[in-house]
Amino acid sequence: MEKTNRQIVLNTRPHGFPADTDFRMVETPVPAPGDGEFLTRTIYLSLDPYMRGRMNAGTSYAVPVELGAVMTAGTVGQVVASKHDQFAEGDLVLCGNGWQEYGVSNGVGVRKLKLGVAPISTALGVLGMPGLTAYVGLLEIGALKSDDVVVVSAASGAVGGVVGQIAKIKGHRVVGVAGAQKKCDYVTGELGFDACVSHYSDTLEDDLKTACPEGIDLYFENVGGKVFEAVVPLLNEFARVPVCGRIANYNMTAAPDGPNLVPSLMQLVLTRRLTIRGFIVFDHAHLAPAFIKDVGGWIRSGELKYREDVVDGLENAVSAFQGLLRGENFGKLLVQVSDDPTR
Amino acid sequence: MEKTNRQIVLNTRPHGFPADTDFRMVETPVPAPGDGEFLTRTIYLSLDPYMRGRMNAGTSYAVPVELGAVMTAGTVGQVVASKHDQFAEGDLVLCGNGWQEYGVSNGVGVRKLKLGVAPISTALGVLGMPGLTAYVGLLEIGALKSDDVVVVSAASGAVGGVVGQIAKIKGHRVVGVAGAQKKCDYVTGELGFDACVSHYSDTLEDDLKTACPEGIDLYFENVGGKVFEAVVPLLNEFARVPVCGRIANYNMTAAPDGPNLVPSLMQLVLTRRLTIRGFIVFDHAHLAPAFIKDVGGWIRSGELKYREDVVDGLENAVSAFQGLLRGENFGKLLVQVSDDPTR
Repeated sequence: MEKTNRQIVLNTRPHGFPADTDFRMVETPVPAPGDGEFLTRTIYLSLDPYMRGRMNAGTSYAVPVELGAVMTAGTVGQVVASKHDQFAEGDLVLCGNGWQEYGVSNGVGVRKLKLGVAPISTALGVLGMPGLTAYVGLLEIGALKSDDVVVVSAASGAVGGVVGQIAKIKGHRVVGVAGAQKKCDYVTGELGFDACVSHYSDTLEDDLKTACPEGIDLYFENVGGKVFEAVVPLLNEFARVPVCGRIANYNMTAAPDGPNLVPSLMQLVLTRRLTIRGFIVFDHAHLAPAFIKDVGGWIRSGELKYREDVVDGLENAVSAFQGLLRGENFGKLLVQVSDDPTR
Repeated sequence: MEKTNRQIVLNTRPHGFPADTDFRMVETPVPAPGDGEFLTRTIYLSLDPYMRGRMNAGTSYAVPVELGAVMTAGTVGQVVASKHDQFAEGDLVLCGNGWQEYGVSNGVGVRKLKLGVAPISTALGVLGMPGLTAYVGLLEIGALKSDDVVVVSAASGAVGGVVGQIAKIKGHRVVGVAGAQKKCDYVTGELGFDACVSHYSDTLEDDLKTACPEGIDLYFENVGGKVFEAVVPLLNEFARVPVCGRIANYNMTAAPDGPNLVPSLMQLVLTRRLTIRGFIVFDHAHLAPAFIKDVGGWIRSGELKYREDVVDGLENAVSAFQGLLRGENFGKLLVQVSDDPTR
């Protein structure tokens, strides 16, 4: 076994966009598991937009990462030493090692992965937290109804791609919003959305209007910013807006200059009887079994597709995360920290 | 019978605050009911904030009032001539004559009033549309939950007073927001709210914080503007905001100067899992029987109080409506158009 455990810790709290110097690579001895514990080697590390919130001091819904502490993250790993009676050396698990090569766990919240269903990396994506987020947000929070026209932002991403495909499987007209042309092409060509508009377009609101001639009944919000402002005027009566993320605003340090659009937003909320509802997947874990049954089935049948963007090496995690905030990843962003024994 | 029917018609569409010249008093012959119709004399005319939206060209949820047409309104009236087999001369009814002395109806949407339950004027207030709005917004849209701290704006008004009293009857801590000191005193002294803060205060947000040391779980939105902006930071996780009205913004002709607070609002929607939901009472008529049973019972038992602000004479309707938009009324605003035979 290697003697050192490389870790990426939070060095300073980012002011706006996270800088390289907000993180620090450290090397510590690989810890030894105590009684009732086991040690896992990180194989895949998940990078997700919510992590930006964890870097702030107490402004998000979760406990912030302390300065000097390892950045939190969901990981897929393999047990390499165990003093726990339910986890044995060699087991592949979904765990929460964070941005480091090794982690010790007492098993709470750790799940053994079934092999053969799908690649183990999907436990961090389409069959994991992002997939469940899509499922919960569309069906439970968004209360998808027959004939809803659905618009999804970050449509080629880990969450958005699943949202749109579930809506397509259920027979809806689905329009995506993405950035680069190759992403838009993937969203329509590969994922089967009816249309996809680019947020780089100077005519975003018109493009959306053309793609949604009968308006929008459900907008799955991942991005905020100008996409949100372009969508709002097109929302139909009784439209629902599940708010999953606001990645365009995560690095904002002050309210943007006016005009203040709150009054016009709230006027539409009233007259069109809109429902805008924020949610966080962790509040809806009870839907996980139904999600695994439905989405697992659609993956096996080939009805639901996914794409992973795997970056090699823990040392590239910071730049990969910065790229995620810039929309540079294409599909679920993972860092491969060590070899995947199943590939 | 009088020969002329005085009517107030929409003369021009208001730009911003409605001017006297946006309305015009006209005199027309009193119409004669045809077969299957009846004629009512307007006794009480209800003035409500939603009417401001009807004066605009197609920007609200309802069909706008046409230029030259009589302003719409709910009314309580008495049948003075009938060729309708279910309505007889002398019947007291809830009807929709609008801002005029007489109106003809075919009976659709007209309800005969039961005498002795409460004064007939209450069919336009606490036992009518405003009362049902309060009931629907608090219980159905706001999904009032045990231990919710409830804040209500326009707390001395026709809707807000009922919202807060229902919440008090159900055992909640209730804080009102009103304007003048006499209104705040009425809200706490007469209606029994736990506290009431004035939106005239320079320290509104601090006042609210003091009144709600554990935050706000349900904010019943009637007013918009700075009250909304003061409430939002105090909303707890999973708080609900039923949006009933935005009277502070109804005469706005352009978005106010920045900063644009949409991103910070939406960020809280996400991290605190807020639900902001607009509603209009007409979509929830199925709750009327439960409302009448509950609120009617609380009125008879003396648990629920109400206050009417009755202005005399149709000729004063325009100035009374202007006063409503300025918050000058104190209780449910009615215009007495002709004698009430039950008083």
